[in-house]
Amino acid sequence: MRSGVQLILMFLVATAASLASPSQVVAQDDPLGSWADGAAKQAIVKFVNATTNKSSPSFVPPAERVATFDQDGTLWVSHPMYTQVVYCLDRVPTLVKAKPELANVEPFKTVLSGDRAAIAKLSTEDLTKILEATLSGMTVDEFTADVKQWLSTARDPRWKRPYTELTYVPMLQLMKYLRDNGYKTYIVTGGGQDFVRVYAEDVYGIPPEQVIGTMGGTSYGYDRKGQPILTKDPKLLLNDNNAGKPEGIHLMIGRRPRAAFGNSSGDRQMLEYTKAGEGERLAMLLLHDDAKREYAYGPAQGLPDTKVGSFPQVLYDQAKKQGWIVIRMKHDWRRIFAFDN
Amino acid sequence: MRSGVQLILMFLVATAASLASPSQVVAQDDPLGSWADGAAKQAIVKFVNATTNKSSPSFVPPAERVATFDQDGTLWVSHPMYTQVVYCLDRVPTLVKAKPELANVEPFKTVLSGDRAAIAKLSTEDLTKILEATLSGMTVDEFTADVKQWLSTARDPRWKRPYTELTYVPMLQLMKYLRDNGYKTYIVTGGGQDFVRVYAEDVYGIPPEQVIGTMGGTSYGYDRKGQPILTKDPKLLLNDNNAGKPEGIHLMIGRRPRAAFGNSSGDRQMLEYTKAGEGERLAMLLLHDDAKREYAYGPAQGLPDTKVGSFPQVLYDQAKKQGWIVIRMKHDWRRIFAFDN
Repeated sequence: MRSGVQLILMFLVATAASLASPSQVVAQDDPLGSWADGAAKQAIVKFVNATTNKSSPSFVPPAERVATFDQDGTLWVSHPMYTQVVYCLDRVPTLVKAKPELANVEPFKTVLSGDRAAIAKLSTEDLTKILEATLSGMTVDEFTADVKQWLSTARDPRWKRPYTELTYVPMLQLMKYLRDNGYKTYIVTGGGQDFVRVYAEDVYGIPPEQVIGTMGGTSYGYDRKGQPILTKDPKLLLNDNNAGKPEGIHLMIGRRPRAAFGNSSGDRQMLEYTKAGEGERLAMLLLHDDAKREYAYGPAQGLPDTKVGSFPQVLYDQAKKQGWIVIRMKHDWRRIFAFDN
Repeated sequence: MRSGVQLILMFLVATAASLASPSQVVAQDDPLGSWADGAAKQAIVKFVNATTNKSSPSFVPPAERVATFDQDGTLWVSHPMYTQVVYCLDRVPTLVKAKPELANVEPFKTVLSGDRAAIAKLSTEDLTKILEATLSGMTVDEFTADVKQWLSTARDPRWKRPYTELTYVPMLQLMKYLRDNGYKTYIVTGGGQDFVRVYAEDVYGIPPEQVIGTMGGTSYGYDRKGQPILTKDPKLLLNDNNAGKPEGIHLMIGRRPRAAFGNSSGDRQMLEYTKAGEGERLAMLLLHDDAKREYAYGPAQGLPDTKVGSFPQVLYDQAKKQGWIVIRMKHDWRRIFAFDN
């Protein structure tokens, strides 16, 4: 039930809208409405105008309009832990049910214990073992179904919402704005390619063929009925992080991006590669400096250090030197989540 | 100078066209005009109607319309030798100039001898050595420039024409027809992904991101001026042949094709994988049975055997059993090349 005050407020808002001057109407229709006016927003609009206006000396033919986006920490929340890592940890009990001999083997034993402090201390090597074990051995169709199921029930510990709601509205607007201007938008993530593909189309409007991620091999074979299946192998084809990002872009797209967006050291080479192309190029890094609305971490600019998506001062300095734009979440984003008021 | 007879003929043709009945005009505008009326052409039209007509029970949303094409022997001539192998052999002298120590090492020595009979007898292992040596070590930009240069001067020994003119008109029409009906057309080739990408956009209208081929790794680094470069590695990521074709399709597209086209055993798994999906699917194999206009090889149906794109009887039998359509070049194609009269 709506209160009387709410109804009055709604009426006032509706009336104000109907009385709005043309310029206000335009402002309401701003495709980048969640971006504050400032250098970051201006750089985006300037880039799009320069590359899509036919009379511009920097005009780019539609076929060559490629924009690449890191995912974790750039398109959605990656703290306190990468979503895919949470998924893999959640899968360990099912894995151990199928392979009981793992129950007393580390790191599976620690995960099964449920001891959050101990789990948080697992080494990268341990996590790799867990990822390999939980992301291979099933068919690609089984994997897709399992991730879908998990996403429908898992909740982020802070907002108590599905992870797919923790996407950044300004970045969704940016992707749509680029697409509306003829750009093909790609995800280029250190996360698993098959994992991100499960939801990228619904959540970001990005089809599976435009998701580039860390790639595992598959093996073609036949099931008991003789039907063809593809089974996920533990074999790593490409680690789509750091130098792997431009390598993955070449492998999957075969064109150098015109614009690239990231938030951490893992995105450095992708941005370097993008900016090194001729003509107008856009490179942007998101700095998480908003502990109140999201998280604050660097350690650039004196922000707290982190293991998850570190943005060190040396990266900040490189950005300033090479003309990359740093997006400061606190100042540049008027709104972060769709569920924000 | 045109002769009087030619001018008269041109006039007669023009007059006939202007007097053509409506049904003849439609025939002229047939998007599959180089296909003879018959089972193959009918299967294509039936498939497109069934999957693109909104009221059809087999309707496929545009985002899921994926069609995959083998290249060598399916889209262009692959006899007497795969074009990319000719390129690699042609590159050996340049390679030896840069690495003189190879001059007396096999198989490079044999290639340098120019002895065609001996070159034709090189083993697969020898050819692999030549491919690895000539397809790696340079930047991706250098490689692209070199292939472009080679394609502009190399000539096929039989037709004395650039290799890029040896594409099959009926297949170009088929790709365009599918695209005009909302399908995304992909090349899925055992050939090198980077090689085919150099000309696929100009020749087939297929952009680099829709070329899936045998994939080598690259390494990100910096040139002497500190500019980012990608260097081609000898490391094989995926052999996009046989089982590698559905594996490559999953890696690069992440969707099962609705239609797939090939001509040899290397395409079998791609066609199986395509046909195993639910709903309307189209699988077609081109049988080269036209020695006069192109080549004749099988050994299916008693045609001569070949090492280059073999189409064995067992594949023919599987096609018949599983409802794949065999395109018989001699009967199904009214015209093969754009330069045909």
